[in-house]
Amino acid sequence: MLRPTLSALRSLTVMCIALGTTLSPVSAFGESLAANITSPAKNVILIIGDGMDDHQITIARNYLKGATGRLTLDDMPVRSSVAVLTVSEQAPDEYIYVADSACSGTSMSTGQATSRSRIATTAKSDLDIETIVEMAHKSGLKTGLVSTSSVTDATPAVFASHIQYRFCESPEKMVTERFSCPQDLKANGGPGSISEQLALSNVDVIFGGGMENFTPNVEGGTTSVLDSAIANGFTVLQTKQDLNTVITTGKVLGLFADKHLATKLRGENGRIAEKPEPSLLNSVHWTMGDVDLPEPMICEANPAAVDTPSLLSMSSKAIDLLSTDNDKGFFLMIESASIDKQSHARNPCGSIGELDQLDETVAYALTFAEQNPGTLVLVTADHSQAAQLVPESSMFSGLNIPVYSPGSMARIITPEGGLMGVNYATNDIFAEEHTGAAVPLYANDAAIGKIDTYINQTDIFNIAKQHLGL
Amino acid sequence: MLRPTLSALRSLTVMCIALGTTLSPVSAFGESLAANITSPAKNVILIIGDGMDDHQITIARNYLKGATGRLTLDDMPVRSSVAVLTVSEQAPDEYIYVADSACSGTSMSTGQATSRSRIATTAKSDLDIETIVEMAHKSGLKTGLVSTSSVTDATPAVFASHIQYRFCESPEKMVTERFSCPQDLKANGGPGSISEQLALSNVDVIFGGGMENFTPNVEGGTTSVLDSAIANGFTVLQTKQDLNTVITTGKVLGLFADKHLATKLRGENGRIAEKPEPSLLNSVHWTMGDVDLPEPMICEANPAAVDTPSLLSMSSKAIDLLSTDNDKGFFLMIESASIDKQSHARNPCGSIGELDQLDETVAYALTFAEQNPGTLVLVTADHSQAAQLVPESSMFSGLNIPVYSPGSMARIITPEGGLMGVNYATNDIFAEEHTGAAVPLYANDAAIGKIDTYINQTDIFNIAKQHLGL
Repeated sequence: MLRPTLSALRSLTVMCIALGTTLSPVSAFGESLAANITSPAKNVILIIGDGMDDHQITIARNYLKGATGRLTLDDMPVRSSVAVLTVSEQAPDEYIYVADSACSGTSMSTGQATSRSRIATTAKSDLDIETIVEMAHKSGLKTGLVSTSSVTDATPAVFASHIQYRFCESPEKMVTERFSCPQDLKANGGPGSISEQLALSNVDVIFGGGMENFTPNVEGGTTSVLDSAIANGFTVLQTKQDLNTVITTGKVLGLFADKHLATKLRGENGRIAEKPEPSLLNSVHWTMGDVDLPEPMICEANPAAVDTPSLLSMSSKAIDLLSTDNDKGFFLMIESASIDKQSHARNPCGSIGELDQLDETVAYALTFAEQNPGTLVLVTADHSQAAQLVPESSMFSGLNIPVYSPGSMARIITPEGGLMGVNYATNDIFAEEHTGAAVPLYANDAAIGKIDTYINQTDIFNIAKQHLGL
Repeated sequence: MLRPTLSALRSLTVMCIALGTTLSPVSAFGESLAANITSPAKNVILIIGDGMDDHQITIARNYLKGATGRLTLDDMPVRSSVAVLTVSEQAPDEYIYVADSACSGTSMSTGQATSRSRIATTAKSDLDIETIVEMAHKSGLKTGLVSTSSVTDATPAVFASHIQYRFCESPEKMVTERFSCPQDLKANGGPGSISEQLALSNVDVIFGGGMENFTPNVEGGTTSVLDSAIANGFTVLQTKQDLNTVITTGKVLGLFADKHLATKLRGENGRIAEKPEPSLLNSVHWTMGDVDLPEPMICEANPAAVDTPSLLSMSSKAIDLLSTDNDKGFFLMIESASIDKQSHARNPCGSIGELDQLDETVAYALTFAEQNPGTLVLVTADHSQAAQLVPESSMFSGLNIPVYSPGSMARIITPEGGLMGVNYATNDIFAEEHTGAAVPLYANDAAIGKIDTYINQTDIFNIAKQHLGL
C-alpha cells in the first residue's frame, strides 16, 4: 500500500498554504490515510542495545560520526534514564546492583524485576510471568523477535519462554555439569527448553541465530525441535537469500547461524584490546621503567559476516511481515546483542559495528513510525557494560612515569583522525563483568509527554502495554 | 521581601475555586507578585557535579535512596545528554576524546571548546575568551561562584579568569618545575595568577576553599592577594559563623579552607577502595588459587568536615545575597567538586557524600526557582570519571575460580542492606584517569521545550546566555 509520509503531507500542506488554498488529508489522499492518521494501528517497536550504555554510545559515535557528529539516536525527541533492577534469588525483596540480560530483559518483557539468569519467571518462587508478547498475541496483535544472537539467548527468550536458567537453551542443555533446569523438563511437567518453547510459540516472526539449539531432538522424542516448529506452522529460513525472498502471511523462523550472528566490524587483523606491557624495571617500583601501550589500530569489516544478514535487513523484513494487512497492530522486539558480547570479549570494534547496526535499524523504525503514526519506537539498553572511554595515553603522561591500565586497552584510530582509548578492567578472566549504571531510553514523537526523565526498567513493559491497549 | 510560593498560590487558587470565587494574583498579593510572575528577573543557576556521570549517580542513588529510590535530580522535568568536546593544543581543529575540568568548564563558561588545562583561553593561540560571568556583569546582572574546591580550581576559575595553565593558581605557582604560565605574568603584560585575577574581579559572591592561594603577596608587590581583594571591595569570610551571619550588599569572598573543603562522608575508618589479594597459587595460573576481596564497609561522616560549611549553606547564602534587592537577575555557578576528586582518590564514600551535597543543593535551587519563575536551573557534569558500579562478587563466581578486578575495588554496605561493588581500574598510579562518556544535563520547568535531548557542552553557554538575554 502506498502511503505518503507525514513529512510529504506537511510539505504539500505548506505548498497549498503558499498557494492560498487549503487541503484536508481526506480530500487529498482518501479515507485510508485519514483513518491511518486519526485511528492508526497501534504498534510498538522496542529496540534493545544489549550493554549499550553511555560509554558504548560515545565510543561508537566518536568512531562512526566523529566527536561533533550525531547518531540517529541523538535526534530522537524523548530521552530518559532507566534504573536497572535486580533482586536476590534467595531473598527476592532484596536488591542487588548489577543485572544480567535475563533479569533485565524480564523486567521489560513482564514488568517484574527478577533475579539474574531467570527467563520470565519469578525469583525463588519460580512462577511463570506472562510476557507482553503473549498478551499482545491474545489480543490479536502480531508479534516478532529479532536478534543478532541465538534466538534462544536471554533477551529474545524472555519475551516468549519461561525457564529457571537462561542457559537451558535446547533439550541437550537442560542438564549439564554446571547448571540444570530439572523442574522445566517435560518429564517433570515443565515446558521444556527455550528452543522447544519458541518452536511451539505463537510468535509470528523470529529472526536470529542459534540453529544448533533447534537441531537436537525434542525431549523424549525422535524428531528435532526444528521439525516441531515446522509442525507448528513456522516457515524456516536459513540464508540471506531466504530472508530477502520470503513472502508469507504465516509464521516465520529465521535461523541464520549455528550460534550468534557474526559481527559487522572487527579490529584490524582481528585484534582486540591488549594488555599494556610495562618494562621489567617497572615491577621494581611504579614510578620506574616504561610501558608499551597497544599499537593504534583501525576497525575493519569482519570477513566472517559476508553471508550474515544485517540487523537492518532482518528488522525491515520483520516490520514488513508484521505490518502487511494488519490493522490490529504489532509488538516487535529488536536486539543488537553483540554490543554486549563484544564488550565481554574486549573487542571495541565489534561493539562499535553492532551499535552502528542498531542505529541504522533505529532510522528505519523511525521512518516506518512516521508513515504509521500509531507506532511507538523505544530504544534502550538492558544493562551497562565494562568498556570505558579513557585517554589514549594517560592524563598524567606529563609526569614521565609509566602510566597504564591494569586491565586491557585498545587505541583506535578514528576516521576523523583522532586516537581513542578504550579500557576493559573489571576482571582478568576470559570475559568482562557487566556494570550497574542506569541506562538510556530514547523514544519517538509518540512518547512525547508520556515518559518521565527517570523511570524503572519495569516501566518499559507498562509503557508498551498501555500504548497497545493491552 | 516576603514572597508567597507558586505552590502556595496554586493552593489558594484551588481553595477559592472550591469556594466558588475567583482570585487574581494581583488582587491577592499586590503588584509586586504580579510583576514577579509576568516579568520576573532572569536568573541562571548552573550546578556542576564534577565527574558526575551515570555511574556516580547510580552509585550515590543506591546508597542514599536505595535501588528503587529517587534523587531530587531524578524528578527534574528536563533530561538531556551532553557531548564533552576537547581539542588538541597543537592542532585545535582536531578532537581528542577525554576532557579535564579546565577545558570542559571553558566550554560551559565561554561556548568554545579548548584544550586540556586551559582556563578560558583558546587552544594554541592563547587568546582570552569572554565568559558568561563577565557578560552578565557588563549587563548589570549579579554573579556568583560557589565550589567545594579551592575557588582557584579549574571549574570556578574558568568563569572569571583567563590563563594558559590551570595550576597557575597563585603568584607562587606561576612558575614551577613542572609547569609555568610565563605569558600570563604581570611582568610580561599578563593578568597574573588565577587568585590575583579573582581578587580583582567583579564577581559579587565567591565561596569555596583555597585560602593558601590568597595569602602570598601579589606578583611584584608587598601585600597579599587577599589584601588586593579587600582593596577591591570584597568582604572576606573565613568560617561557618562568618557565612551564617554576613549581611552585605557588597562583594563577598568566602575562603573556608586552605585547600579544598573537606568531604561530607568518608569510608569506614577512612578506608578507600583496595586491591583484591589473590593467593600465591593464583600467580601460577589464573584459574588456580583463590582471592580475598576487600572487606565490606559502610560510609560514615567525615570528622574533618565538622567546621566545613556545606555546599547547601554556601549556595543558599549566595542565592540570598544575589537575589536580594536585585530586579536585574543573576548568574550563579555552583560546583560539587569532590565527586571527581574522590573518584581520582578511589574513595567511593567521598564521592557519594559530595553527590548528596549536590542533590540537596539542587532541591534548594528548585524551590527558589519555583518562587522566582524567571530562574533557569541547569544541573550537569563536566566530564565522566573512573568509578564503575560492578558486581560485589563476580558474575562468574559460579565457576569457582578467583575472579577479581585488576585495579582497586570497594564493597559498600548500603543502608537498605545491599552490598555494592565499586571498581577503579583506569591506571595504577596515585590518581585515576577521567573518562570520556557523554554526561547528563537536567533542567527545571524553565527549560521545557528549549533543550534538545543531545547537545554539545558548548551549548550550555548559549542556553544560559539566551535565558539571560545577554
